Amino acid sequence: MKGSIVTVGIGPGSTEHLTPAARKAIEVADIILGYTTYLHLIDSLAPDVPRKASAMREEVSRVAEAIDLAQSGSRVALISGGDPGIYGMAGLVYEMLHERNEEPIDVAVVPGVSALNAAAALLGAPLMTDFAAISLSDQMVARDDILRRVELATLADFVLCLYNPQGRHRTEPFGRTCEIIARHRRPQTPVGLVRAAYRNDQQVQIVDVAALPLAEVDMMTVVVVGNSRTFTHDGKMVTPRGYGDKYDLGEGTTEKEP
Amino acid sequence: MKGSIVTVGIGPGSTEHLTPAARKAIEVADIILGYTTYLHLIDSLAPDVPRKASAMREEVSRVAEAIDLAQSGSRVALISGGDPGIYGMAGLVYEMLHERNEEPIDVAVVPGVSALNAAAALLGAPLMTDFAAISLSDQMVARDDILRRVELATLADFVLCLYNPQGRHRTEPFGRTCEIIARHRRPQTPVGLVRAAYRNDQQVQIVDVAALPLAEVDMMTVVVVGNSRTFTHDGKMVTPRGYGDKYDLGEGTTEKEP
Repeated sequence: MKGSIVTVGIGPGSTEHLTPAARKAIEVADIILGYTTYLHLIDSLAPDVPRKASAMREEVSRVAEAIDLAQSGSRVALISGGDPGIYGMAGLVYEMLHERNEEPIDVAVVPGVSALNAAAALLGAPLMTDFAAISLSDQMVARDDILRRVELATLADFVLCLYNPQGRHRTEPFGRTCEIIARHRRPQTPVGLVRAAYRNDQQVQIVDVAALPLAEVDMMTVVVVGNSRTFTHDGKMVTPRGYGDKYDLGEGTTEKEP
Repeated sequence: MKGSIVTVGIGPGSTEHLTPAARKAIEVADIILGYTTYLHLIDSLAPDVPRKASAMREEVSRVAEAIDLAQSGSRVALISGGDPGIYGMAGLVYEMLHERNEEPIDVAVVPGVSALNAAAALLGAPLMTDFAAISLSDQMVARDDILRRVELATLADFVLCLYNPQGRHRTEPFGRTCEIIARHRRPQTPVGLVRAAYRNDQQVQIVDVAALPLAEVDMMTVVVVGNSRTFTHDGKMVTPRGYGDKYDLGEGTTEKEP
């Protein structure tokens, strides 16, 4: 029998945000592999399917095991928090298959609600126009390359979605990122901080660019930095798409004269 | 009774990718408002809840109606394709409430699997590192601003996720976008084209930067342009996260010497 790997996005936390396609992929698997924290989030699903948890930073050996199991005929569900395709597990499966150059196995990805979708929903509507997602983890990318992206994205007036902003023992390049942002954005520009979206310990906060360097952020926080037009309304963070330039939103119907 | 608006992300197409939270928000609503095409996608849900469809480009009057209904005490489910927070309906609700400056009503967003999550899953793993989402629609943003973002994002080696690349009567700024990309990317750089993800008429194609100007794209196509390291493997488009620089992926276990 031919094995397979399905990389399954379980969404941000609560199974209320896990799609039926993801649930099904988990239920029909022969074995479930994943990071301990994510497997806990799906404790209630597929009680009869064996599961094997591994630690953070064991992604490479976890995927190697998934490939070995698939090659022996197992249907493997490889769990990814959020969406496997955004800073998740989908890429490593393909990277490793490419490197090994072995016989092809069936590989698929089930998309999920990613951390950025979840953070945006909890903050209001900060991503309504063009945005850039940047990870500040320097584990696999050089700091200068990260900072260059921050600089160019800020110059281009993108909303920024910063992943992995600080580690337990790593405060850079977050500090220098804050400096770059402060040079290009008004001090009052809203910044959203979302941690553990849709989990029991969820934290949602809106600060401003001036206060960002002192904000408490860690590897689990998503930091959303507004663009030049982002504002707050009734406790929510909103980046206008531009409707107000074209339509009379007070009336709600009339198109403005050009 | 106090009314509310919940902007509900229904995911890319099939209800297999619609979350339980989205389903529930639709089922408990007093009325469902949305664009005709999206309401058809959820025909099978909540048969007893009245629904009112409106056309594309009627977003402003649709949201005005949602606010009026909520102010009269109705629980309104405002449907958004994909994720309401990414080029969806969430922002306009807040923009209009802000402009009208009326009594606050309860407003919430239920996140969904967005077009970019869906496109990435179907293409393989093209978004595994930093990326920028840019809409090429010049309805509400000036063409020069769009092109400046394309230029800076390409310079920064972001993977690009282009929304609304061409309209029926609009071929710019797609043409000039292709020129900018061609200046900064190898001609062989993979480009993914995804249309109608997870619907009956789904189309998924991988071309290269050299062929992009001639590709068939329309308002419904998401165009994913690889960065300098993106490759194809077994028909999939993959942007490496960088594991291969740090780990021996052939062995799958050993960390390389620095």
